[in-house]
Amino acid sequence: MSGRAAGAERSSDTRELILATAERLFAERGVHAVSNRQVGEAAGQGNNFAVGYHFGSRAELVRAIIRRHAEPVERARVRMLAGIAGGGQVRDWVACLVRPFTEHLAALGSPSWYARFGAQVMTDPALRRVVVDDALGAASVRRILDGLNRRLPALPLPVYLERSAMTRHLVMHTCAERERALAAGLPTARPSWDDAATGLVAAVVGLWLAPVTTTGA
Amino acid sequence: MSGRAAGAERSSDTRELILATAERLFAERGVHAVSNRQVGEAAGQGNNFAVGYHFGSRAELVRAIIRRHAEPVERARVRMLAGIAGGGQVRDWVACLVRPFTEHLAALGSPSWYARFGAQVMTDPALRRVVVDDALGAASVRRILDGLNRRLPALPLPVYLERSAMTRHLVMHTCAERERALAAGLPTARPSWDDAATGLVAAVVGLWLAPVTTTGA
Repeated sequence: MSGRAAGAERSSDTRELILATAERLFAERGVHAVSNRQVGEAAGQGNNFAVGYHFGSRAELVRAIIRRHAEPVERARVRMLAGIAGGGQVRDWVACLVRPFTEHLAALGSPSWYARFGAQVMTDPALRRVVVDDALGAASVRRILDGLNRRLPALPLPVYLERSAMTRHLVMHTCAERERALAAGLPTARPSWDDAATGLVAAVVGLWLAPVTTTGA
Repeated sequence: MSGRAAGAERSSDTRELILATAERLFAERGVHAVSNRQVGEAAGQGNNFAVGYHFGSRAELVRAIIRRHAEPVERARVRMLAGIAGGGQVRDWVACLVRPFTEHLAALGSPSWYARFGAQVMTDPALRRVVVDDALGAASVRRILDGLNRRLPALPLPVYLERSAMTRHLVMHTCAERERALAAGLPTARPSWDDAATGLVAAVVGLWLAPVTTTGA
């Protein structure tokens, strides 16, 4: 291997190590409670500026962590969508939304940190645009919400928009809470990610099929 | 007024001012992104230790902010529950859960900060126990979830537990997102908190009435 190629490989290993370390620390302690210096130290980087050197801003670091997970989830979602080939019932479309995410979390093993990290970022005043744009605004998610909408009795636009947002909240925060319980060795409502997905799919379907009320009650 | 009484009143005013300032800064920038010193300065306290003096730990400050809102919400919920007097349909019980919270947010005027603050705290690894214990674990919330459960076809315990948690996620994060949009002058799915509550009640009812599936799908 040439010196340059070996250097590039070391740099890529360092990047991966920093990403994994940052994700863990952010999930466990909070994105703003952890400094770049602490991330660098925990990743065994002697240089205080390693994180800045590899990622630039905090937003870029957060974006890189999300991309690392969002890309395989997106690929799985596209495959699953191809399986229903534009047909399918409401619950099949909802399953395409939920299961690629829960299967990814299951594949990460326990403890995983991505759901807790994502839920924090999604509620952070400054960082949330990064998740909404990258992770949950993915092309496949928009295709699913659109597919759901075509399978339902015509929903007024405000109801379509609010149920889309509610679906994101439900999936992200339910998974984060389950991941947190698993990491702490606490009991969970469902034994496996597969069962948790079953519960989520049923709830999300219920949410989309709920009769629309427009007057106060 | 005696010197001691005037001092106690000043102290109580200072406490209120610190609470309101902390809530605003935490909601806008993130609980961990803001130091006690910044809260003190923004509240016009010359003394760097004012926040520590009045509240002790960060957790105590967070708890005090939540109590300030949770108490009136709880009182409104108890009144609304008395109105259905143990009768009522599923949607009436869900309305008792949602509307006292959204009506409180409406009464705060715009911008309010409490929903964004609560949503952040609820997803924070260290602070979430404070909200779960105080705000959403309130006696009335447990009574409502129990009342809902008695009005539904027998739900397996895991499903009851997961739907209770999902309800908390839906209500808190939907309200936080709406509050954020209002504060930023962005469009919202629903024109008023009253309409947003209508959408939330319908969705939460749909979630609780969804058929229970126990096998993967």
